[in-house]
Amino acid sequence: MTFTPPTADQLLAIRVSAGIDELAQSERFAAATPDLVEAIVEGIGAFASGEWAPLHRDGDKIGAKWKDGEVTLPPGYVDAYKAFVEQGWNSIAGSAEFGGQGLPFTLATATLETLGAANMGFTLLPMLTVGAIEALEHHGSAAQKAMYLPKLISGEWSGTMNLTEPQAGSDVGALRSTATPITEGPHAGKYRIAGTKIFITFGEHDAAENVIHLVLARTPGAPEGSRGISLFIVPKFHVEQDGSLGARNDVRCVSIEHKLGIHASPTCVMSYGDNDECIGEMVGHENGGLRAMFTMMNSARINVGSQGVQIAERAFQQARAYARDRVQAARAGSPDKSPVAIIEHPDVRRMLMRMRALTEGSRALLYYTAGQVDRGALGNEAAQKRAELLVPMLKAWGTDIGCEVASLGIQIHGGMGFIEETGAAQHLRDSRIAPIYEGTNGIQAADLVTRKLGYDNGGVLQSLMAEIAAEMEDVPEVAALAKDAAAIGQWMSTTASLDDKLAGSVPFTTMCAVAVAGWQLGRQSRASDLHSKIAVTKFFNRVIVPEARGLGSSAMAGAALLYDLDSEALAG
Amino acid sequence: MTFTPPTADQLLAIRVSAGIDELAQSERFAAATPDLVEAIVEGIGAFASGEWAPLHRDGDKIGAKWKDGEVTLPPGYVDAYKAFVEQGWNSIAGSAEFGGQGLPFTLATATLETLGAANMGFTLLPMLTVGAIEALEHHGSAAQKAMYLPKLISGEWSGTMNLTEPQAGSDVGALRSTATPITEGPHAGKYRIAGTKIFITFGEHDAAENVIHLVLARTPGAPEGSRGISLFIVPKFHVEQDGSLGARNDVRCVSIEHKLGIHASPTCVMSYGDNDECIGEMVGHENGGLRAMFTMMNSARINVGSQGVQIAERAFQQARAYARDRVQAARAGSPDKSPVAIIEHPDVRRMLMRMRALTEGSRALLYYTAGQVDRGALGNEAAQKRAELLVPMLKAWGTDIGCEVASLGIQIHGGMGFIEETGAAQHLRDSRIAPIYEGTNGIQAADLVTRKLGYDNGGVLQSLMAEIAAEMEDVPEVAALAKDAAAIGQWMSTTASLDDKLAGSVPFTTMCAVAVAGWQLGRQSRASDLHSKIAVTKFFNRVIVPEARGLGSSAMAGAALLYDLDSEALAG
Repeated sequence: MTFTPPTADQLLAIRVSAGIDELAQSERFAAATPDLVEAIVEGIGAFASGEWAPLHRDGDKIGAKWKDGEVTLPPGYVDAYKAFVEQGWNSIAGSAEFGGQGLPFTLATATLETLGAANMGFTLLPMLTVGAIEALEHHGSAAQKAMYLPKLISGEWSGTMNLTEPQAGSDVGALRSTATPITEGPHAGKYRIAGTKIFITFGEHDAAENVIHLVLARTPGAPEGSRGISLFIVPKFHVEQDGSLGARNDVRCVSIEHKLGIHASPTCVMSYGDNDECIGEMVGHENGGLRAMFTMMNSARINVGSQGVQIAERAFQQARAYARDRVQAARAGSPDKSPVAIIEHPDVRRMLMRMRALTEGSRALLYYTAGQVDRGALGNEAAQKRAELLVPMLKAWGTDIGCEVASLGIQIHGGMGFIEETGAAQHLRDSRIAPIYEGTNGIQAADLVTRKLGYDNGGVLQSLMAEIAAEMEDVPEVAALAKDAAAIGQWMSTTASLDDKLAGSVPFTTMCAVAVAGWQLGRQSRASDLHSKIAVTKFFNRVIVPEARGLGSSAMAGAALLYDLDSEALAG
Repeated sequence: MTFTPPTADQLLAIRVSAGIDELAQSERFAAATPDLVEAIVEGIGAFASGEWAPLHRDGDKIGAKWKDGEVTLPPGYVDAYKAFVEQGWNSIAGSAEFGGQGLPFTLATATLETLGAANMGFTLLPMLTVGAIEALEHHGSAAQKAMYLPKLISGEWSGTMNLTEPQAGSDVGALRSTATPITEGPHAGKYRIAGTKIFITFGEHDAAENVIHLVLARTPGAPEGSRGISLFIVPKFHVEQDGSLGARNDVRCVSIEHKLGIHASPTCVMSYGDNDECIGEMVGHENGGLRAMFTMMNSARINVGSQGVQIAERAFQQARAYARDRVQAARAGSPDKSPVAIIEHPDVRRMLMRMRALTEGSRALLYYTAGQVDRGALGNEAAQKRAELLVPMLKAWGTDIGCEVASLGIQIHGGMGFIEETGAAQHLRDSRIAPIYEGTNGIQAADLVTRKLGYDNGGVLQSLMAEIAAEMEDVPEVAALAKDAAAIGQWMSTTASLDDKLAGSVPFTTMCAVAVAGWQLGRQSRASDLHSKIAVTKFFNRVIVPEARGLGSSAMAGAALLYDLDSEALAG
């Protein structure tokens, strides 16, 4: 089915929730004028709907194929990626020094959101490159930046993140890949990398000239756990001093996974150093890999949270089109007994309103977060901390609602929703990875209650919730939720044990996310005075916000409730 | 992975929530002694885990295959079905007059629950046969009963329900298949059936000797809509007077669907009368098809609600096994830094407790409902009405939690959950049909608020909720939820417009279901004094019940909230 980019709603969120005009008042982002912003959001909309959306179904049906270590993307993908690179869409937020456009993260967010709504699996390719760019921008040497950034920013080369190993998933510190210093010969100063990495998104493919792997590994004698991991660049093809591509490095895609969804995105098992000739160079300091990883993580987690918004938008569009076309039964209680489009039936309408409210609410949270990231980059420390507080909320709740909206989309299709050819089921299958990767939603919630809640002794959360409660005084539902979240945050910051905090972390994260989303929808309603936005916001306040308040009991239930049964009894 | 039948919890639910001992005091169910009940539940557990569970993965991977009108089940299915029939598992509740065991519906429920947890797709085969048996028991002529019931009850023949046509889904009354009376020749008195039916579960397969299709169609001049449909028996093979199989009837499986899940279950497009030689006989009165359909529906909807319990049980078993095996990271805050099984981590434990509480809660609702059905069959009218009130709650909430628990099961597996070979994803794919078929959950909720709530002017609901509130006085969460549900029910029975009722029907249905489940878990806790049941019930009360209370705002929000945007603006 056709895809219509949600341009108007994105522009509203960029204006009101990200506050683009304020950003454009800074010297760094002065180029982000209203005209340019509009041109970018409309431009990527046209590109994504014209070039990437039509490949979406084949991406699922045909998928990426592995043969003898090579991965072939589905038909049309290589050309569509080349067009994306040629038109400069990969370089929006890249540093101008290395050929990027130096625009706010907010606009890169709009680009990825639109591309991902058109084709979620495919969009993982540029998403992963962002991680590599950020790691090098923040931690790379001048020589590394000069060698790798221009082609990564343009998109001619793509990037990967290699963290996971079979025994090291959520616990990255358990990884065992090794990096042995090379002291002699042409590679002196570099490292010999060895190990197996799994779940490597776009670890191998045929759309970019080179793939720059960022690999976490241990140097000899490194401390155990996460304090002993270092970050390495391992290019698929060696890069010569003049920037041309040299010989193939000793890194190989051993296989790709057979997954529930995102079939267009090859999930690779990567083997490093089978012939002991895998050469990598260290990024940043020895044993500083974890810090470098955290750098990448903030934006990567925002981008995954955005995937929830993306799939929700796509699923909503498909469901509303079906609901307008499908004629079935007369309106209950109507004197007119002729059948109507199912969008007229109350419960179908409830589901559509819910889909739309969750989609627009999560989008509001997305752009509010992106705007705070941009302020942080401009040196606003309070905004930087607030951004870090928002990231786990966005990643967890955004991806949860992605799954929920995709599932509602199936429901609206009735029996047809269960038939693969309809395409509604693909959205659910695709969406289901987002709560898992880039730190499971449980990890996000733990990050919120153990690390982020600690910022300024809980003050960063308290000031956010106080701001919401004050500004939403005339929207009692949202104000009450913000006060609930503040009270639970207070309890977690003071009385609650670590176990109690962790036990309530997931419902608490949802409550916080919904409070921020409700707040930003309220702002957008006031600023736009759009009837549709006001109606969607009212639904959000009346339905979604009270549900979130219903999580309060669970957030404060404490760990005793979970450990009352020992693991034997729980599992037995 | 291996499947362990949940025998102990089933027996507890059968004893406390279905009240089997009271049923066994009746003459009709006197055979249902504790020993026999235990033998049946244990016996089906052994059979299902030994014979059906091992076929579950292949059912998904290989699936049913169509070729030239014939459907072949996956390897091993035909033999496993024959063993099921030979051991008499199909005949538990069938009438003794036609070779059944005449036992309570409660025990047939246990049989299907166990089989479905072992292999949900496969269990649709006996489930559909139940519908055919019930239609014939209630509406068939003596000759029809004698001819068809013995083989359907034994399971040698299977049954189907043919309602849906491309333009007639939720609106069954829109169907166009025709039945033309035959006035002369060997088939005089019968009908020539013509039309296409879609979504026909096990419409064609190679496991039973004959397939007895129950087909809704219109006779010439029948009134429009649902008042003009009649029910017909259309056997795949004609049955001779001596009971032997005759020639093939003119009915054909044109294709099977490519679905998200339940691949072992062929979902058929059936074509009747391509050569104008499809012969059927009417069941019951002309234009009485809808009433016959309603007969089948109560138990069919209970059996689909049970599928939610089934998939939840299976997904829970797989997740808990993984959580005990998978070692990852030390316990947060623990001085011991060695990694532990993830079941020790608070949020994994929260998810497992949630899965278990939803599974056992929905099972409690299932058996409470089944027990009321059995009392209804014994002539207890109040129980009959209560059963009818409970059916939409069980069907809707049971299938919703099936999807939720399956999704949590994926989450517990982390990245491995997204890999098809793990098997966790299959549960989600299989589960997703249950909220749709046998009346979507929206239709269930509409049935509750428009038909069932009307029983005794709302009195049937009020007396149920009053009973819960009184009996659960010392469990404030459950008592409060029952009072909320009673108040909303009161509003719906009196003030609310039809549109307002429908607008709030789905959240209201969930609230009611959770109240009943919480009540029955409480009863089971008290009756058993089992530590694990008490802990699970406490979790249910502290987490699931308050969430359901959070739906109150949505249940009472009214239709204006949904129609504030017209369909153009909602979809635009």
